[in-house]
Amino acid sequence: MNSSEAKIKAAVDPQILTDLVLANRILYSLGVLDSHGHVSVRDSKHPDHFFLSRSLAPALVTADDIMAYDLDANAVEGRGRGMYSERFIHSEIYRTRADVHSVVHSHSPTVIPFSISKTALKPVFHMASFMPQAVPVFEVRDTAGMTDLLIKTRELGKALARTLGGDNVALLRGHGNVVVGPDVRYAVFRAYQTEINARLQLQARALEGPLTLIAAEESANIFGGVGIPPDRAWEMWARQVKID
Amino acid sequence: MNSSEAKIKAAVDPQILTDLVLANRILYSLGVLDSHGHVSVRDSKHPDHFFLSRSLAPALVTADDIMAYDLDANAVEGRGRGMYSERFIHSEIYRTRADVHSVVHSHSPTVIPFSISKTALKPVFHMASFMPQAVPVFEVRDTAGMTDLLIKTRELGKALARTLGGDNVALLRGHGNVVVGPDVRYAVFRAYQTEINARLQLQARALEGPLTLIAAEESANIFGGVGIPPDRAWEMWARQVKID
Amino acid sequence: MNSSEAKIKAAVDPQILTDLVLANRILYSLGVLDSHGHVSVRDSKHPDHFFLSRSLAPALVTADDIMAYDLDANAVEGRGRGMYSERFIHSEIYRTRADVHSVVHSHSPTVIPFSISKTALKPVFHMASFMPQAVPVFEVRDTAGMTDLLIKTRELGKALARTLGGDNVALLRGHGNVVVGPDVRYAVFRAYQTEINARLQLQARALEGPLTLIAAEESANIFGGVGIPPDRAWEMWARQVKID
Amino acid sequence: MNSSEAKIKAAVDPQILTDLVLANRILYSLGVLDSHGHVSVRDSKHPDHFFLSRSLAPALVTADDIMAYDLDANAVEGRGRGMYSERFIHSEIYRTRADVHSVVHSHSPTVIPFSISKTALKPVFHMASFMPQAVPVFEVRDTAGMTDLLIKTRELGKALARTLGGDNVALLRGHGNVVVGPDVRYAVFRAYQTEINARLQLQARALEGPLTLIAAEESANIFGGVGIPPDRAWEMWARQVKID
Repeated sequence: MNSSEAKIKAAVDPQILTDLVLANRILYSLGVLDSHGHVSVRDSKHPDHFFLSRSLAPALVTADDIMAYDLDANAVEGRGRGMYSERFIHSEIYRTRADVHSVVHSHSPTVIPFSISKTALKPVFHMASFMPQAVPVFEVRDTAGMTDLLIKTRELGKALARTLGGDNVALLRGHGNVVVGPDVRYAVFRAYQTEINARLQLQARALEGPLTLIAAEESANIFGGVGIPPDRAWEMWARQVKID
Repeated sequence: MNSSEAKIKAAVDPQILTDLVLANRILYSLGVLDSHGHVSVRDSKHPDHFFLSRSLAPALVTADDIMAYDLDANAVEGRGRGMYSERFIHSEIYRTRADVHSVVHSHSPTVIPFSISKTALKPVFHMASFMPQAVPVFEVRDTAGMTDLLIKTRELGKALARTLGGDNVALLRGHGNVVVGPDVRYAVFRAYQTEINARLQLQARALEGPLTLIAAEESANIFGGVGIPPDRAWEMWARQVKID
Repeated sequence: MNSSEAKIKAAVDPQILTDLVLANRILYSLGVLDSHGHVSVRDSKHPDHFFLSRSLAPALVTADDIMAYDLDANAVEGRGRGMYSERFIHSEIYRTRADVHSVVHSHSPTVIPFSISKTALKPVFHMASFMPQAVPVFEVRDTAGMTDLLIKTRELGKALARTLGGDNVALLRGHGNVVVGPDVRYAVFRAYQTEINARLQLQARALEGPLTLIAAEESANIFGGVGIPPDRAWEMWARQVKID
Repeated sequence: MNSSEAKIKAAVDPQILTDLVLANRILYSLGVLDSHGHVSVRDSKHPDHFFLSRSLAPALVTADDIMAYDLDANAVEGRGRGMYSERFIHSEIYRTRADVHSVVHSHSPTVIPFSISKTALKPVFHMASFMPQAVPVFEVRDTAGMTDLLIKTRELGKALARTLGGDNVALLRGHGNVVVGPDVRYAVFRAYQTEINARLQLQARALEGPLTLIAAEESANIFGGVGIPPDRAWEMWARQVKID
C-alpha cells in the first residue's frame, strides 16, 4: 500500500485514525448510529483532506476501511471501494467551517420527531450547552423540492452547511442530524448528548410548563461556551468497545 | 431424509435457507419478533412453494426446522411437526402478490397502538419510504365477526391479503402487522424500520404539529420507490447473531 | 435433610421445582421482577401447600432456596430462613381459588401508573386476552387505612383475594400487581403479557381514540378463554436463563 | 503509601470502601450514573472526612481511585490527582446533615424533566416512600445568577444543602439530583428508586387523574419512615457487577 492514501494515513497522528474507528463503534454502542450514519475527522496536517470509512455499517469499521477524501468529496484513491453517498455532508461542512475537525451524521432516533414538528430542539440540561438556543432544521424541499432526501451532491451539502451556519448541531427533516466538534471526541460526545437532550425535552413536554431552558448566558459560561469536555466519557467508552 | 421436502430444500440456493434462519434470529434480536411471529421466504424456483419454520420461537429456529409449504398452507411433508396456525398469512399473500418473495408477521410492539387507534401509521422518515402514505389496518371483525383474532383459515388469509393490497405493510387490529418484500433481506429490514417509524411517529405526537411526513413523491424517489436497500444493515446483523 | 420440607419436595414432580426456579430467573430477565416480587407454585399433590423462595432477590433463587408453606403462610419448616413478608398474597389466593396453581406478585413497572390513575388497565391485544375487561385495583386504604402498603397479614391477603375475585390479574395501588394461572408457565407468561399490554395501552393513549379493545367475546374465543398458551415462549426462555 | 490518606483508609472498615467501589459500578449499570456523577461515603470513625473517587467515570472506579476529603472539600492528600469539581455537593451536605453518611449526585435521566418543569416529583409507589411529598428543586440562578450550573464552590454547595434541608432527595434544575442516605447501600437504592419513580410519575400523567400518591402517613409507616431497606437489592447487584 505505497499509495497516496497510505502516505496520507502514515503522515497523520495515528491516534486520530484510532479515535475514528473507536468513534464508529462508540456511536453504534450508544444507539446514536445504527446500520447507517457516519463519522469523519479532518486531517489536521492537511485541512483539505478528511477521513471517513468506506460504505460500511459503523459497527464493522476497522482502520483498513478508512479512506481519505478531498473537499470535493472525492476519494484520494478510490480503488473501487464503495463510498457513502452522503459524504458531501462532511466535505461541505469542512469547506465552510475551519473550526470544525469532526462531523457526525446520524439517524439519532429521538431527534427525528423534532425534525418533522414545529417544536424546536433546545438545550434543557447543562451537558447539551453546546447546542444553539434553537437547533436549526434543514428542509431539503426548500433547496431542491421533492428529492430522495439524501445529501448526495455538493449543492445539497452546501445548502445543509448554510443551515448549520456557525452552530454545532442541525437537524435534517425526516432524516436525522449533523453534529460537529473541534475534534472527534467532542463530536462523538456532542452527538450522544444531543440524543439525550432530545429525550429529556420530549419527556418534559408531558409535564407542566413553562420549561426552564439553559440560557444563552449559561451556555457561554460552561467551559467558555465549548461545553462539557468529552474526556471522562471517552476514557470509559474507549474501554467498553472492542476493536477486532 | 430422501423426502419431497429434502429434495425441494436441496434444489434451492442454500443462501436462501441460511438467510431465513438468520432472519428469524435477527428479527428476534431487534425486538420485532418475540416468542411469537414468523418469517417466510418463497421458493424462487417453484414460486408455489414457500419456506417457514415448524411451530417454534424464532430465536430457536435452525435450518432443520424449516419446512416447505404449498400455497394452500399445507406442508409438503408434515412428518408430525407442529405448524404455525397462522401460516395462511403467508400462503395467501404469496398467492396474490407475485412480486412478494418474503413475508414477516410480527407483534412488533409499537405498531399495535396504531392498530387499535384512529391514527394511521404514516412514513415519517426516509428509511420507511416503502410504507404507503397511510398503512391499512385489517379489522378481523369486518370479515368474520368475533373471532380469536388468529388468521387460521384460507378465508382470513385472503381477507388480510385484500387489505394489504399492493402495499408493503398492513396492521392487524389488536394483534400486529405483516411486512413484505422482494426478498428476505428487504422484508427483515422493512419490518425493523416499520417498528422504528412507529416509535418516531408516536413521539412526534407529543410535539407541536402539523407534522411533515415523507411525501409520496419523495418515496417514489428513494431507490425508485423500493426504499433504502438492506445490504449495509444485513451485513452487520448477520455478523451479530449467532446460529447454533 | 430428612425433614418435612425435604419429604414434601421429594414427593412432588421435580419439574415443578425446576420450573419455579426458572420462573424466578425468567421474570427477572424480562424486567417483570426486579430485586423484589416473588412467584409461587401450589403443591399439586397436596393443594394446601405451596412453594416459594426464602426471602431473596428472584435473580438469585436456586432450588435450595425453595421453601414449603401451608395456607396460613407458615413455613412447613422454617429453619430460621428469612421469609417474604408478603407471602400472604399467595396463601390467601390459593385458599380461595382452587383453579389457581401459581401466583406472581411483582412491581411490574408499567402497571403501576395504572394502579394510581382513574384509567383502567384493559386488554388491547390478543396476547392479553386472559385479562378481565377492566383489571380491578386493590386500594389498601379501603381495608386498613394508612398502612405501609405491604400485604403482611392474613386479613390483607384476604382483602386482596376478594378484589382479585375470579380474575387473573389485579393491581395493587402504588405497589404492583398479582397475576395467577393454572400452572407456573401460564402465570409467568401472563405476568409478562400484562406488562406488555400496559405499555401498549399507555402508548395508544397518545393516539386518536376511541381505542378498539379486545372484546369479551373475543377473549372467550382465544383458547377457550384461557388465552394464548405459554409453551412456545417458555421453551425459549428456559434456554435463555442460566441456573447456577 | 504510608501517607495520611493511606492511614485513614486503613483505619476504616474495609467493607465501606468495597461498598463505595461497588456503588459506583452498580449506579452505572442501573443507568443512574453515566460518564458523570459521583457517590461518596462518610468516614464513620472521623465524621469530618469522606471518601470519593478521583475525577473518573464511575464505571471505571477501583479502590485505588478513592481519595479522602475533609469538609472543606480539600483532599487530605491530593498527590496531583484530578478531583471532581462538584465535590462541594458532598462536603456541604455532610457538614449540615449529621444523619447522612452517603451522597449520590447524578444526571439520573428521568428526574431532569421534572427539574425544568412546574410539576413536582412526588412519591407514587411504596419503594420511593423516602422521598418528600414534593421533591425540592435547586435553582442555581436564585443564588448566583447566570453560572455554568456546576456546584464548584462552598457557597453553591451550602445553597444546595439548604434546598435539600432535611429531605433525602433534591433536584438541580437542568442538571440532575442529589440523593442521601444513612449508608451507601441506602443511598444507592434510593437513587435508583428515585429514577424509577420519575419514570412512573411521567407515565401516569398520560392517564386520567387525579393520581393517588403515597401519603405522608403511609411513608411514615414504611420501615419507620426510612423506607424499604436495600439489602435484598444490594445482594443481587453486588453479584452482578464485576470489579476488575
